Amino acid sequence: MDKMSNCFSHTGRDNLGSISDQKINEYCGIAGFKSHTDVSNIIYFALRSLQHRGQESAGISTFSDKIHTFKGMGLVHNVFTVSILSKLKGGSGIGHVRYSTAGKSMIDNAQPIIIHNSIGNMAIGHNGEISNAAKIKKYLKEKGISFFTESDTELIIKLIVIEAQKTGNIITGIKKAMQFLDGGYSIIFQVNDRVFGIRDPLGIKPLIIGKIDGGYGIASESVVFDTLGGKVIRDVYPGEILEITEDSIISHYTFKLKHTAHCMFEYVYFARVDSIIDGKNVYSVRRKLGQILAQEHPANADLVIPVPDSGRTHALGFAEVSHIPFAEGLMKNRYVDRTFIIPDQESRIAEIRLKLNPVREIIRNKRLVLVDDSVVRGNTIRNIVELLKNAGAKEVHVRVASPPIVAPCYLGIDMKTRDQFIAVNKTVKEIQKFINADSFEYLSIGGLVKAIKFDKKDLCLGCLTGVYPVPINGELYRMQQQLKNFKHKKV
Amino acid sequence: MDKMSNCFSHTGRDNLGSISDQKINEYCGIAGFKSHTDVSNIIYFALRSLQHRGQESAGISTFSDKIHTFKGMGLVHNVFTVSILSKLKGGSGIGHVRYSTAGKSMIDNAQPIIIHNSIGNMAIGHNGEISNAAKIKKYLKEKGISFFTESDTELIIKLIVIEAQKTGNIITGIKKAMQFLDGGYSIIFQVNDRVFGIRDPLGIKPLIIGKIDGGYGIASESVVFDTLGGKVIRDVYPGEILEITEDSIISHYTFKLKHTAHCMFEYVYFARVDSIIDGKNVYSVRRKLGQILAQEHPANADLVIPVPDSGRTHALGFAEVSHIPFAEGLMKNRYVDRTFIIPDQESRIAEIRLKLNPVREIIRNKRLVLVDDSVVRGNTIRNIVELLKNAGAKEVHVRVASPPIVAPCYLGIDMKTRDQFIAVNKTVKEIQKFINADSFEYLSIGGLVKAIKFDKKDLCLGCLTGVYPVPINGELYRMQQQLKNFKHKKV
Amino acid sequence: MDKMSNCFSHTGRDNLGSISDQKINEYCGIAGFKSHTDVSNIIYFALRSLQHRGQESAGISTFSDKIHTFKGMGLVHNVFTVSILSKLKGGSGIGHVRYSTAGKSMIDNAQPIIIHNSIGNMAIGHNGEISNAAKIKKYLKEKGISFFTESDTELIIKLIVIEAQKTGNIITGIKKAMQFLDGGYSIIFQVNDRVFGIRDPLGIKPLIIGKIDGGYGIASESVVFDTLGGKVIRDVYPGEILEITEDSIISHYTFKLKHTAHCMFEYVYFARVDSIIDGKNVYSVRRKLGQILAQEHPANADLVIPVPDSGRTHALGFAEVSHIPFAEGLMKNRYVDRTFIIPDQESRIAEIRLKLNPVREIIRNKRLVLVDDSVVRGNTIRNIVELLKNAGAKEVHVRVASPPIVAPCYLGIDMKTRDQFIAVNKTVKEIQKFINADSFEYLSIGGLVKAIKFDKKDLCLGCLTGVYPVPINGELYRMQQQLKNFKHKKV
Amino acid sequence: MDKMSNCFSHTGRDNLGSISDQKINEYCGIAGFKSHTDVSNIIYFALRSLQHRGQESAGISTFSDKIHTFKGMGLVHNVFTVSILSKLKGGSGIGHVRYSTAGKSMIDNAQPIIIHNSIGNMAIGHNGEISNAAKIKKYLKEKGISFFTESDTELIIKLIVIEAQKTGNIITGIKKAMQFLDGGYSIIFQVNDRVFGIRDPLGIKPLIIGKIDGGYGIASESVVFDTLGGKVIRDVYPGEILEITEDSIISHYTFKLKHTAHCMFEYVYFARVDSIIDGKNVYSVRRKLGQILAQEHPANADLVIPVPDSGRTHALGFAEVSHIPFAEGLMKNRYVDRTFIIPDQESRIAEIRLKLNPVREIIRNKRLVLVDDSVVRGNTIRNIVELLKNAGAKEVHVRVASPPIVAPCYLGIDMKTRDQFIAVNKTVKEIQKFINADSFEYLSIGGLVKAIKFDKKDLCLGCLTGVYPVPINGELYRMQQQLKNFKHKKV
Repeated sequence: MDKMSNCFSHTGRDNLGSISDQKINEYCGIAGFKSHTDVSNIIYFALRSLQHRGQESAGISTFSDKIHTFKGMGLVHNVFTVSILSKLKGGSGIGHVRYSTAGKSMIDNAQPIIIHNSIGNMAIGHNGEISNAAKIKKYLKEKGISFFTESDTELIIKLIVIEAQKTGNIITGIKKAMQFLDGGYSIIFQVNDRVFGIRDPLGIKPLIIGKIDGGYGIASESVVFDTLGGKVIRDVYPGEILEITEDSIISHYTFKLKHTAHCMFEYVYFARVDSIIDGKNVYSVRRKLGQILAQEHPANADLVIPVPDSGRTHALGFAEVSHIPFAEGLMKNRYVDRTFIIPDQESRIAEIRLKLNPVREIIRNKRLVLVDDSVVRGNTIRNIVELLKNAGAKEVHVRVASPPIVAPCYLGIDMKTRDQFIAVNKTVKEIQKFINADSFEYLSIGGLVKAIKFDKKDLCLGCLTGVYPVPINGELYRMQQQLKNFKHKKV
Repeated sequence: MDKMSNCFSHTGRDNLGSISDQKINEYCGIAGFKSHTDVSNIIYFALRSLQHRGQESAGISTFSDKIHTFKGMGLVHNVFTVSILSKLKGGSGIGHVRYSTAGKSMIDNAQPIIIHNSIGNMAIGHNGEISNAAKIKKYLKEKGISFFTESDTELIIKLIVIEAQKTGNIITGIKKAMQFLDGGYSIIFQVNDRVFGIRDPLGIKPLIIGKIDGGYGIASESVVFDTLGGKVIRDVYPGEILEITEDSIISHYTFKLKHTAHCMFEYVYFARVDSIIDGKNVYSVRRKLGQILAQEHPANADLVIPVPDSGRTHALGFAEVSHIPFAEGLMKNRYVDRTFIIPDQESRIAEIRLKLNPVREIIRNKRLVLVDDSVVRGNTIRNIVELLKNAGAKEVHVRVASPPIVAPCYLGIDMKTRDQFIAVNKTVKEIQKFINADSFEYLSIGGLVKAIKFDKKDLCLGCLTGVYPVPINGELYRMQQQLKNFKHKKV
Repeated sequence: MDKMSNCFSHTGRDNLGSISDQKINEYCGIAGFKSHTDVSNIIYFALRSLQHRGQESAGISTFSDKIHTFKGMGLVHNVFTVSILSKLKGGSGIGHVRYSTAGKSMIDNAQPIIIHNSIGNMAIGHNGEISNAAKIKKYLKEKGISFFTESDTELIIKLIVIEAQKTGNIITGIKKAMQFLDGGYSIIFQVNDRVFGIRDPLGIKPLIIGKIDGGYGIASESVVFDTLGGKVIRDVYPGEILEITEDSIISHYTFKLKHTAHCMFEYVYFARVDSIIDGKNVYSVRRKLGQILAQEHPANADLVIPVPDSGRTHALGFAEVSHIPFAEGLMKNRYVDRTFIIPDQESRIAEIRLKLNPVREIIRNKRLVLVDDSVVRGNTIRNIVELLKNAGAKEVHVRVASPPIVAPCYLGIDMKTRDQFIAVNKTVKEIQKFINADSFEYLSIGGLVKAIKFDKKDLCLGCLTGVYPVPINGELYRMQQQLKNFKHKKV
Repeated sequence: MDKMSNCFSHTGRDNLGSISDQKINEYCGIAGFKSHTDVSNIIYFALRSLQHRGQESAGISTFSDKIHTFKGMGLVHNVFTVSILSKLKGGSGIGHVRYSTAGKSMIDNAQPIIIHNSIGNMAIGHNGEISNAAKIKKYLKEKGISFFTESDTELIIKLIVIEAQKTGNIITGIKKAMQFLDGGYSIIFQVNDRVFGIRDPLGIKPLIIGKIDGGYGIASESVVFDTLGGKVIRDVYPGEILEITEDSIISHYTFKLKHTAHCMFEYVYFARVDSIIDGKNVYSVRRKLGQILAQEHPANADLVIPVPDSGRTHALGFAEVSHIPFAEGLMKNRYVDRTFIIPDQESRIAEIRLKLNPVREIIRNKRLVLVDDSVVRGNTIRNIVELLKNAGAKEVHVRVASPPIVAPCYLGIDMKTRDQFIAVNKTVKEIQKFINADSFEYLSIGGLVKAIKFDKKDLCLGCLTGVYPVPINGELYRMQQQLKNFKHKKV
């Protein structure tokens, strides 16, 4: 009655939300389980361990007779209560946490998306972005299909349904749909009580399989299985259509390409430091990034300090190689989340100082190496340099543990226009001046690739090079030669 | 602030809601406007004047560039705030208040339903029930169409889209869809900034056109235009596809049948007493029902008392003809709405006594005629008779201002099974005994028809006769002879 | 879930609340119980049956070891849940529903007020107004007493404590406090597990004792005991200090004055029509008011119609005597409560039309007698006359079932200044003109007294005469001669 | 929207809250400002920078004509909105964030506490605990004083009022009250538009003065003034009664004792690492604690890892001295706050794993030094050792950067009984066994004192020694000799 189950569509919450414009912050987390026991509690914990991948909305669907769903705006532990979880009955189910990829922030775009049709009851959770969405949408609209969201996710599921409808076979439908879809998509897909994991042939976004007590699961990151006390089995292969049952995993089919295109940003920033993605420890990669950065761009300084929390591991790596002592010279306020903004200039400045406060004692009269994982627009790093100098730092040498971002991402990250990137508009020298640093250096692309330890051809470096692993209108395309079992796409 | 935008699907709010099981309470209210000024405030007041037609959820959609929507569970004035209304920009829009027809109570079934497709952006609000929904659903599923709600409304809009898609013409699509659809449907339909009113060829549910300052509107009941200070123009004709613009009304097409099938329950109970439906004053009909009831079944008594508030007008009519004084012998608590139920027997009884309290002073030692508008299960009237006798009434003569309900409604009222009806299981004498009344009488069907003043063939009396105006599996069908411009239906 | 336990003090909710300025609407409801079983459910139902006495806030306190309390803004059934009630353990407790008497609308002024001190744990709920509050406050402040609310209620309880502190005896404390307090106060007072009912010596506000299953109760109105299936025992005597136990009622003391001063407005408007106050049936009084009004001011008309719901019983009485038929010519929207106001003139007018809609069919071309219970400012009645005339009424003869209000109330009703009263500023003729009625008449004071059937000296007619039963600065005082056991007051 | 201003008293939110039982977590944050402009925004940012001192409730009071207050349960940025802040007008005000010291978690105990009396309108916010509260309460009750909360804070303000009442002078009242009060109390006290800071003569809890643009402020920690872009002036002296105006600070009086008793736990754990308290940098103290710990208890190991976030600075100090590399071997989930607990064993374990996850890559086959700031019950550290061993750590050497806790705190920390302390029940060896560590060592008291750099006599080490700076029933008392201007206390 006073419960407030209200939904605002399309006009969204424009005035309420406040999105930081300095940091790349667009990603999703997904998880699906099939077990001999009810899975809603399991999904709940899985989503909480994936909370860093999306704080905008959270949703869980389970199947018993039909699909039961609960979604809400906000953090997982605010959206769900014991009572709600207890109503989400069933031994199979999926969950999703979301930032936003396309479309505004609103409950209607929250996932899982639930539909029913001739194939059955379906739930889908998706992480990634379809690069030929417009084409797919046109194709579906011509078939009389209507859409109730603006998400790529609805496109995917409706394409699968239209294709599966033709033969009545869901696996065939998925395969056919995958031949049409370009871009990045890690998907947890539930059809009645069946749970599938699907990963695009380029393996852009992570997806990993694990064993839990009483069943199996698929999730965005390996930490899910740490939290659940389970065991990681392996990554879902790029191009794989995988199904889990209570007792086994079934690999229905795998589209194989000569090369993958793993998103380098997962290693640099997105994933949790304790995750293992496609066989690589995120922690090791980040430490290595810092180490190589120190080799490429040493600095004459007294202390290495990180931009907390994202630059910490890179900074520790930098300190190791440079033999400059590491210190936590910036205090990060744990309680500063997305909050309402008091609309005046003074309050905006207070908000920044509230978020990060220099520990004067540490930095006063010191020459600092300030290590951050990446720089997009440059405003945040500029504010931090100013904070440090005002607090008495003698010199601030900024080192960025990834290369300059110079091109948009069309595959799942909210960086859509070139004019927002500081590295497009300014030379390294100009950036140094702009942010008032005493020196400023980026990691090289070679250094990045070396740290991640994948063949350069197996990484998506689109935002660093402007050359993409899928065809994008007006952009350069790194041709996928020698498709193995991939028919030519024609929608 | 952003806390509660939660949506519970399919498992619904089973444990929260508490639906009175004695009274028919399933109906919706709809309204659409097109004006030279913003319409969200107008729709807000329209919905509040239609609040009696649905207290479960409320929603408003408007169009400016795209369709903006806000929906919520609860009363109109609890769902909407000034701030929300101000964000719903645009000179065209529609609104909906809902109880529930098919599918459980949940925000996902709240209307208007919003979709976009090759035709444009669409919003739809619907009052009624499609009797051949299963057939339509099968037809659409075979075309690969998925559904995200369980409502007939989604069926209707998706059928229109599939049909319109074939020619690219929305009017043709609506016409085609109407040839397929059986049952009752009054619809407000918005395509981009165009606003349509559609009424099924049998005219089962009301829909009326009015002029307001700056534009035109369509709504479930004439009282909307009283509230808005506007003027009623005429009812939407049964079978009509009507469009409103800021400056005119356009009748695109009218399917004509030899007979209509207006729902008699609108006159008996649903509609507001101050409404005019298909040319009949609801007040006059109810008074007449009471008058004829008094003629058919006079009683030897001291006072006529109504079951408040629904039986009041009927009771006044009874008093007029019988010349027995009218009195308000039962006090209705204005603050007893749907509330949580304390789960013990004592509290359930307290809940009933809280709802209605006899005015002992009036009824003590009196022979009463107790007039109610209708009796479905008989539990409520039984409780009231007991209340009155405990409070000292010497005799209680129950008079029901409508005939016995003996068959389900398939056209929009939540009475789906025969075993719930007391008149199916008991004779009039047995009912009298069951409710412990000193006499008990129903109005005759003839009396009902006489009071409403429509030809009997133009009313839907399905729940009173078991003979329906549309074909229903396993039920008798009153053939619609001589369809004028109605092609044979084939989905 | 635990998000919203917020309290706004002193700045209140000025901008949120919206108080109708036409109708007197300031009163409280109180109830206290002592039983062999837990009482929170009992209090819950008691408060809901007293909901008409206050919709602003609701609160319940119970005692088990210490006093447990829950209060909230809004209707009883919105404030309390099963879970909250289950936490309010104990066989003794009190409850309160509140509008507001002094001080703004805010949770801090919600009652019961809970304090602990040398006497024990205390809860108090109060209906009424202390006329010498300023003097009492000064006295207490001089003793170093602080206040956390602006309510008279806190004054009362702190005065009792200060007085009881002197002797350590609570009864003595109450007696002493009553000698100091002037004005109207019906109080439910809990000290640890003891429950007291206290009524001012003038008996201004109602308070009645009843027997329930397993114990005893005290409440503002007799309907509480109807709802609970209990039995009324008797009114608390004016000036009485009464205690209930599980098994008995104990009258500790009664201050006796020669005359009482029962508030006439309880009979005219406030109390529920099914209540019995100080031995008088409210229903009978209201019917009689209408009957006498018809005798004093007959009208030549076709129909008697009430202002729903408050004028209904009076109108039925008028119809009986005048032999003019009664009809419900105005439809009252059940869903129009206090809601937010869209801040433009059109919306304000729509709000009025939403609240009351004329049934055109009834009133068109009719000469109407419009009966209301009372007129304070005249704006509402003026709007209604306009509504009726616009809807086609030929003549509208307004009859008011109580005398002109010409003076403020200092004893519990929110009418504090003379300039708001239409009867102060205009003659009866001028009022008729102002509201555009064809005739306009008030009941006489003699007629009022005759209908209530108390000696005129035993009623408070302050707002009708300007002569008050207690001394008020700058107002006339009807001396209370011959105090029996009342010592001269000196604080 | 305006529905939920509910207050649950005394029964509290026992069933809702979930308090970690391993970590000391009871402290408050306070701040007061006086400025030429409105101060509500300033207080809002001050409270957010003090959020680490209390997440249970937040409140702000300001003065303009009277005192306006808003309080709520939860984090500062959830309790306050722009709209609420804009209503809190006035150039003087105070704020409070609270965990809980005495009394349960509930809105009624939230601060500031607001009262009015003969002295004026008052607001008070308090950090600390009165050790002779029972005696003071008895004294006040005997004077007829009632209490509406169970907090020490209400005691303090009512004692001040009673004393001030005697002379009419507020400063005199405060002085007199301070002579009676034993224990720790840092107070921000507002009387009408005057703002005072008061600190107990032992200086147990911090309180510091700063200059902001347009005025002055007093707050619990220096970081408030960093956030506001202001400047720290000095600490409030132990025993000082200080007033701020828009343009100056006024020291009314200072009670001087020979020794102070600063709480050592502020340096070890409570305060932010970037704060400066009584002239000591918290960062420097923590680093020094780790350094001395490494000297006192070296370990033969491969890596130093901290318990994040509280042990990080100590661990860095340990690494520096021991020359063992520092690594972040435990990943702390930023989104794990106080949340509801799914009531089964599996979920409890998942909750722990969710909170902290070992980075297997780092710790596998490594000999670790695990550094935490303090150990109270030992359960948390035991869980962490188990996590690390399960994740492959070869050895885990636990080092605690503070001495064993062996006695309760009566001065503001929620450790009230000896039986909860692991160091009371077990020897160091037994603890090592219990937590399954390969070695386990505490810092010595000497080491602690050396790191803080205060004379041992100027610190409160009650919880480490069982000897207290104030008399506590049944505990040892370190006599405060040579009181300078402190009269013998007698209430």
